[in-house]
Amino acid sequence: MLDRGTAIFIAIPMPRIYFEDIVPGSITTYGPRTITREEIIAFASEFDPQPMHLDEEAAKKTMLGGLSASGWHSCAIMMRLIYDGFLVNAASMGAPGIDEVKWLKPVRPGDALSVRLTALEKREPKTRLDMGFVQFRCELLNQQGDVVLDSAYPGMFAKRKREAAE
Amino acid sequence: MLDRGTAIFIAIPMPRIYFEDIVPGSITTYGPRTITREEIIAFASEFDPQPMHLDEEAAKKTMLGGLSASGWHSCAIMMRLIYDGFLVNAASMGAPGIDEVKWLKPVRPGDALSVRLTALEKREPKTRLDMGFVQFRCELLNQQGDVVLDSAYPGMFAKRKREAAE
Repeated sequence: MLDRGTAIFIAIPMPRIYFEDIVPGSITTYGPRTITREEIIAFASEFDPQPMHLDEEAAKKTMLGGLSASGWHSCAIMMRLIYDGFLVNAASMGAPGIDEVKWLKPVRPGDALSVRLTALEKREPKTRLDMGFVQFRCELLNQQGDVVLDSAYPGMFAKRKREAAE
Repeated sequence: MLDRGTAIFIAIPMPRIYFEDIVPGSITTYGPRTITREEIIAFASEFDPQPMHLDEEAAKKTMLGGLSASGWHSCAIMMRLIYDGFLVNAASMGAPGIDEVKWLKPVRPGDALSVRLTALEKREPKTRLDMGFVQFRCELLNQQGDVVLDSAYPGMFAKRKREAAE
């Protein structure tokens, strides 16, 4: 008979990738995920209702030359691709910010977007022994291989717990 | 009788603020807008499903100490506040990117968020006479006046058209 007192519920996947496991210089790719016209317009309607993100005709008269996703929408999709491909398996503790985002090319309806994540240097703060920072370059690419978004950010990751014998 | 041939349909508001009208050193504030638990969870479910953005109990075990908005959600709300308060009236041409984003404090359900936008220097590219760049510092504040997000970006704005006599 099932002993309910010992049932274990795991809501969060156990991390498999800790700070120690991330190798500077390693390059991984995640995706693709196709962005639709409906998604572009829905995000823009909520957060960035500039004409170039909402209406094809109005967008043609702008520098973007046609309907294009809000730059913040591209960032949000990049976040989701990194989560699904990497962070879901990692002992991630988030990020304190973003160093830089460059929106290099328009993201169009139907574009199939992928992330190319390059681990750069690692840094271990002296004041905290349980975690470290990994500096990443993070690029979003379309189906032609064009980099549409280039960014850099420091990710925070927990270290593996020491064995009980210290 | 109405002459339909001369009817004018204006879908986009006529801009009132051009590059020339933006004064370096000027500080404007927009908002507030209250962020709800439902909004936080909806955004996170779509773009950033880390436990600290989805579940109160899981979030308590993280560095954020409780349910908090995705940093990208804070960015998107900042964008909307800037649009509604400023860009809707401006001859904005978008932005090529973001120089920096720092997520300084958690954004909690019920927080009333405002934007403080500071125009820093202006720059006129030699290759384009019809527009210029305005460097902004852009802070997102909560109802206690804490800066929860600090960022900087270059906005692009059209110049006023010259009179017909050149």
